[in-house]
Amino acid sequence: MASLVNGITNEQVSVHDRGLLYGQSVFETIAVYRQQPLLLDAHIQRLQRGCEVLSIEFDEATLLQEIGRLCEAIQLAVLRVMVSMGEGGRGYLNPSPARPNRIITTHDYPQHAQAYRDRGVVLGLSEFRLARQPALAGIKHGNRLEQIMARSNWQPQWQEAVLVDQMENVIEATQANIFVRHGDQLLTPMLDQAGVAGVMREYILQSADKVGVSAEAVPLSIADIESAEEVFLSNCIIGLWPVRQFQKTTFNDFSISHKFFELMQRDGAIPTF
Amino acid sequence: MASLVNGITNEQVSVHDRGLLYGQSVFETIAVYRQQPLLLDAHIQRLQRGCEVLSIEFDEATLLQEIGRLCEAIQLAVLRVMVSMGEGGRGYLNPSPARPNRIITTHDYPQHAQAYRDRGVVLGLSEFRLARQPALAGIKHGNRLEQIMARSNWQPQWQEAVLVDQMENVIEATQANIFVRHGDQLLTPMLDQAGVAGVMREYILQSADKVGVSAEAVPLSIADIESAEEVFLSNCIIGLWPVRQFQKTTFNDFSISHKFFELMQRDGAIPTF
Repeated sequence: MASLVNGITNEQVSVHDRGLLYGQSVFETIAVYRQQPLLLDAHIQRLQRGCEVLSIEFDEATLLQEIGRLCEAIQLAVLRVMVSMGEGGRGYLNPSPARPNRIITTHDYPQHAQAYRDRGVVLGLSEFRLARQPALAGIKHGNRLEQIMARSNWQPQWQEAVLVDQMENVIEATQANIFVRHGDQLLTPMLDQAGVAGVMREYILQSADKVGVSAEAVPLSIADIESAEEVFLSNCIIGLWPVRQFQKTTFNDFSISHKFFELMQRDGAIPTF
Repeated sequence: MASLVNGITNEQVSVHDRGLLYGQSVFETIAVYRQQPLLLDAHIQRLQRGCEVLSIEFDEATLLQEIGRLCEAIQLAVLRVMVSMGEGGRGYLNPSPARPNRIITTHDYPQHAQAYRDRGVVLGLSEFRLARQPALAGIKHGNRLEQIMARSNWQPQWQEAVLVDQMENVIEATQANIFVRHGDQLLTPMLDQAGVAGVMREYILQSADKVGVSAEAVPLSIADIESAEEVFLSNCIIGLWPVRQFQKTTFNDFSISHKFFELMQRDGAIPTF
């Protein structure tokens, strides 16, 4: 698979890169289908917002040019786009001026994505508790030890797991956002204290009226999942996975999941194979 | 300055290293003086504990051999020793088997350290609030965005800043631990919810009786700093800095700071220039 560092084919970065030293970076994972990076505008916007929060300079034009170059040869793959603070600075003090590193890599599209979409997934409840840090909530930054620890605690029968914060608020799944439907109301957790505000989550919030539901980000509890008529997970690689079981609760209504899935295909938000 | 990656002189690591992707690493900054890495046993122990928490395999013998090799030519420097999870895995799922990367670099010893020791420092109070995450508290892992954000908010007259958590408990300074003395009682914050348990902090806790005080880790408040007779900061590079001012409070008693400083020199815990 391919790898570009600052526009040059290269699989190495400096040991002094602050992405390596401190996780001082933001990243996106983007589905690429038939040479097109899907939902690219939204990914670029989120990168830009993350760079603002972390004081990393963002060169959109150069990044877009490099992404386009890598995608030219791709039929179906995952693109990982990372912008780090680059080298320099003194300890935690940021370099000035900074020269960010752009690191773009391509990866195989996950084979299980389609099966999970068709059959639905078994969702567990992680024992890991996310910290509450409003200064970093929402953006997709490079400090991801919590997700790694949560992932290592999945039970074998789970295909994803719900993460709650230390006040027992539902935040997200390990590598996806979560939605629950009660009647024609679609709810997803507010992410002002923890969690990653996914690009596909935003797409779903924006297009809810097209599938006949109203959508809102709210404080969400475990009970709100258990009492839902329909539950699904979203991210930009999988698109959407219906949940067929969460702990002891089973779900049989996948009607809105299927409508969203069709909409995503029509909109070119996910691969259409 | 020198750089070893897995024992080979090299300034580059793979773009697929999970230290870069997720900050999945632990690190130490060690003072080296006259070919000796100071307090090496304690640094190695903390690295090992951090690797255990993050499920990173720890090869002590190889690491010690590489550290020894790099230190042979050093009169005075800072050594940064990092162990990352290495490459592989699927997203947040850890690689199995894993092949950790050992990344050791040398850096100039900071010039301002001695002046701050002699004159004492002005300590501010950061507006940044640390998250509470007991699963990661105490270890020196590679997810350091909070410290970077806190550092970027220092006011110009500060030489360090106190960080509190979201419940207003004092945790640490940006790149040092904090001690306050009331009479013959030396107190430092408990670090079971946030913060890095410094190697020099541990040294001070262990050797308090040698300078005639009792030492304890406790929940600490801003008021406990303001009402102290003496306040100082510690880390393995600076050794110890007396605090002469914290916000509007000034301190004139540096007696225990000086005793600890002399003890550190006698014990070979800090450079003796």
